[in-house]
Amino acid sequence: MAAPKLTLQELERRLTAEFPQMLNPQTGYSIDDVWPGGSRVRKRFSPKSLRPGGTIAGTTMMTLADFAPYVAILATVGWVPEVVTTHLSINFLKKPPARDLVAEARLIKLGKRLAVAEVGIRSDGEDDLVAHATTTYAIPSKVK
Amino acid sequence: MAAPKLTLQELERRLTAEFPQMLNPQTGYSIDDVWPGGSRVRKRFSPKSLRPGGTIAGTTMMTLADFAPYVAILATVGWVPEVVTTHLSINFLKKPPARDLVAEARLIKLGKRLAVAEVGIRSDGEDDLVAHATTTYAIPSKVK
Amino acid sequence: MAAPKLTLQELERRLTAEFPQMLNPQTGYSIDDVWPGGSRVRKRFSPKSLRPGGTIAGTTMMTLADFAPYVAILATVGWVPEVVTTHLSINFLKKPPARDLVAEARLIKLGKRLAVAEVGIRSDGEDDLVAHATTTYAIPSKVK
Amino acid sequence: MAAPKLTLQELERRLTAEFPQMLNPQTGYSIDDVWPGGSRVRKRFSPKSLRPGGTIAGTTMMTLADFAPYVAILATVGWVPEVVTTHLSINFLKKPPARDLVAEARLIKLGKRLAVAEVGIRSDGEDDLVAHATTTYAIPSKVK
Repeated sequence: MAAPKLTLQELERRLTAEFPQMLNPQTGYSIDDVWPGGSRVRKRFSPKSLRPGGTIAGTTMMTLADFAPYVAILATVGWVPEVVTTHLSINFLKKPPARDLVAEARLIKLGKRLAVAEVGIRSDGEDDLVAHATTTYAIPSKVK
Repeated sequence: MAAPKLTLQELERRLTAEFPQMLNPQTGYSIDDVWPGGSRVRKRFSPKSLRPGGTIAGTTMMTLADFAPYVAILATVGWVPEVVTTHLSINFLKKPPARDLVAEARLIKLGKRLAVAEVGIRSDGEDDLVAHATTTYAIPSKVK
Repeated sequence: MAAPKLTLQELERRLTAEFPQMLNPQTGYSIDDVWPGGSRVRKRFSPKSLRPGGTIAGTTMMTLADFAPYVAILATVGWVPEVVTTHLSINFLKKPPARDLVAEARLIKLGKRLAVAEVGIRSDGEDDLVAHATTTYAIPSKVK
Repeated sequence: MAAPKLTLQELERRLTAEFPQMLNPQTGYSIDDVWPGGSRVRKRFSPKSLRPGGTIAGTTMMTLADFAPYVAILATVGWVPEVVTTHLSINFLKKPPARDLVAEARLIKLGKRLAVAEVGIRSDGEDDLVAHATTTYAIPSKVK
């Protein structure tokens, strides 16, 4: 596969500038890697994400499941921040422990108007999935 | 239908005590109403929820889609906070304007082990849906 | 609401001609009613739909969940048979008895490129849902 | 990984006996392989599966998406045919040509009460997915 249209460094710089509520040192979200058709995104563990019982809030996993494919689309297609999520389906498989979460997205369709991704979310360093999602994005018509 | 097992006031008091990261004056989430088999939950508009383009972040809608049925289950079954979300599927239908969001949940199945809900999310005062979700919850075996 | 763009009779005639594997007296599928934004579609009970345990196969319910919104879109938009399903999500809520199944579809979004529907499936004459689905359709660009 | 609890041959024999509307030479469904945690299931091409435009009906892909994980659960857990599907979510990614379809299921959770699977469906011999599904199953309480 070829190089991504936008590198990890370019994506971090532009997303931090235009999407600061998602990507800034306070939020704990960061990009581990990108490649054509995929991405790996991290949420640093924070006690604020904890729910009663010591597990991480579902909201954190849903945000990862939405953000990782968004990053993968930008890396693959180029800078089209107007891409919008139209559907997200997530299965919560086991309670994540108090540790970083890592989401790996894989684009399973990249059409002219729609992109579909599969996302596996794991506790950092673990093999088992804590959640699995599929997400769909509408790509603005001027793009591509 | 009979009265809910837990009233709006009891739910607010107990959830604020045990689930403060969700229900406290800062988060902007509150419960409008509960009844056996359903609930209506609100997210007060906050500029912090805005995404580029002036629309509200998907995360806010996903959190409502998860929280409203959780409240409906507690209102219907009684205090079983260990109920956990196993699946959430959400369609984002249109960009919500800068206004409160109101989610109405309806339990379409309440079994011994699983509850399934349908959730409609609207901008306050509007008829059209901005998002629609279905969510599934596992009910701990000791319960019911 | 205005009248549908295609009446029940026109839809039955055209779908039977062009989509005979779905709509012919042998399949047991028929249209009960259409209106702008919705439809009600029926599957006549047949012993061939039964699974071990006397319940109706999930395939029958998935076919209804896909077909009812398709009919609703045609009734609302006009004859655009090239509409294709891009996503279907279905919750099976209880085992349907040996009886006709009736699916009622409601379009919750009808955009230029995407339509999203909610579908409730019931045993004929019952109030409780046996299944609930949401489905998404891509509308060809020449249309509308 | 260890051997499956039920081999391909045992599964074919028992499913053909007890579930003949799914597995018999007429239906065109067959099992290619099973292993602990997964299965590969095939639908032989048949002109009867064709929709207008020369593509294969969505119903065929939904049936595969439901059946492949069912086979994987039986292969992994043993003979528990009472396993029932509670949820199925499928993305249709591209129109499959007139050829056999092969579905590969992978169990991403196998709990005491719930199993969750991911399913990729391809045209025989192709790399690209034509559809991708996630499915959830309730496991009867006596089992395991």
